[in-house]
Amino acid sequence: MSESSLAVTDLLAVLAYGELSAFDRMAEDARLAPDHARRAALSEMAGAEIANYRRLVDRLTQLGVDPVAAMAPFVAAIDDYHDQTEPRDWLEGLVKAYVGDSIADDFYREIAGFLASPDRELILDVLHDTRHVDFIAGEIRAAVEADPKVASRLALWARRLVGEALSQAQRVASEQDALTELVVHGSGDLAAVNALFKRLTAAHTARMAVVGLNT
Amino acid sequence: MSESSLAVTDLLAVLAYGELSAFDRMAEDARLAPDHARRAALSEMAGAEIANYRRLVDRLTQLGVDPVAAMAPFVAAIDDYHDQTEPRDWLEGLVKAYVGDSIADDFYREIAGFLASPDRELILDVLHDTRHVDFIAGEIRAAVEADPKVASRLALWARRLVGEALSQAQRVASEQDALTELVVHGSGDLAAVNALFKRLTAAHTARMAVVGLNT
Repeated sequence: MSESSLAVTDLLAVLAYGELSAFDRMAEDARLAPDHARRAALSEMAGAEIANYRRLVDRLTQLGVDPVAAMAPFVAAIDDYHDQTEPRDWLEGLVKAYVGDSIADDFYREIAGFLASPDRELILDVLHDTRHVDFIAGEIRAAVEADPKVASRLALWARRLVGEALSQAQRVASEQDALTELVVHGSGDLAAVNALFKRLTAAHTARMAVVGLNT
Repeated sequence: MSESSLAVTDLLAVLAYGELSAFDRMAEDARLAPDHARRAALSEMAGAEIANYRRLVDRLTQLGVDPVAAMAPFVAAIDDYHDQTEPRDWLEGLVKAYVGDSIADDFYREIAGFLASPDRELILDVLHDTRHVDFIAGEIRAAVEADPKVASRLALWARRLVGEALSQAQRVASEQDALTELVVHGSGDLAAVNALFKRLTAAHTARMAVVGLNT
């Protein structure tokens, strides 16, 4: 397998395991919901994740790759991220979905630009439904407006989520050369990678402001 | 609301809450899977349940009914069923999905015949994907063939599932007059209801035989 097709395989695999875990954790976090309508909303987001998992795994299979073996190198980092960021209540669960999914989407949207068809379109297609993101943002904003003390607690929680995500992303980057190469070469050079991370950070800060949280 | 439209609302609502709970419990049971591929398979079934939940709830909303209020009378019976039948391992989880989903599908398929369009088609459409059912049946059959002692344990478990499901169904029937009327009138008379239950039982027995389990 060429270096670039290995990178594509890695990217599809890390996304696939990310979706499988996101399904699992969101389904669990949905139980923290205060009522059935809200529980269903997060459950539906989880349902979208597992549907995306299937599409990514089908593409891996089509490329002649064993999906389970391809996902294996990413299991520990993603599981550790979730183990370190178990929400204690409904709002923490919502912030986790809002922050984590959005940063992941921004990152994958950037990376998709480095790929050829049909993988580019597949990755753009499995990004999260904005309808779900809007629902979550509305819930968080309402909670923050109703009780300003909630804002500082959730802002702290969001910082922990970002810190943990960065730490696991660094771990993956240091272990997965092909994937790291894809990001560096796709961006152009290390300065461009730096600019990419600045864009991700700026978008995160703007999203936090939308729901009334400081970064 | 007329008696018959109340029955339709009740039917859509009990199905909707059934799907929401099935999502939640299957997502949890998927964690019992011995590997990621199997975990994903049950997670995908859960994903199908929550997609069906959305379709049923959208139909209730279209009929001018508040879905959460409509589901409320069925929450206790369905939650109790699941609380009484928590699988202790992966195989018990599979048998629960196989037995429970199939009997529910058979029942709803019969009831759909009593309804007018578009509710008839909606209910037929949210029945389970046979692809998933086939996967589950294959897994159970393989486990039973590999270790015949497993068969008696799982057969006992299946009897408990059916017993608990019948007991909760009777509770719903005794509390929900419109729904009970729909089944009785739709069938024709009480003898026809009896025949319906005989068909459900025969289909269950045949399905158990397929996977190597006695009833």
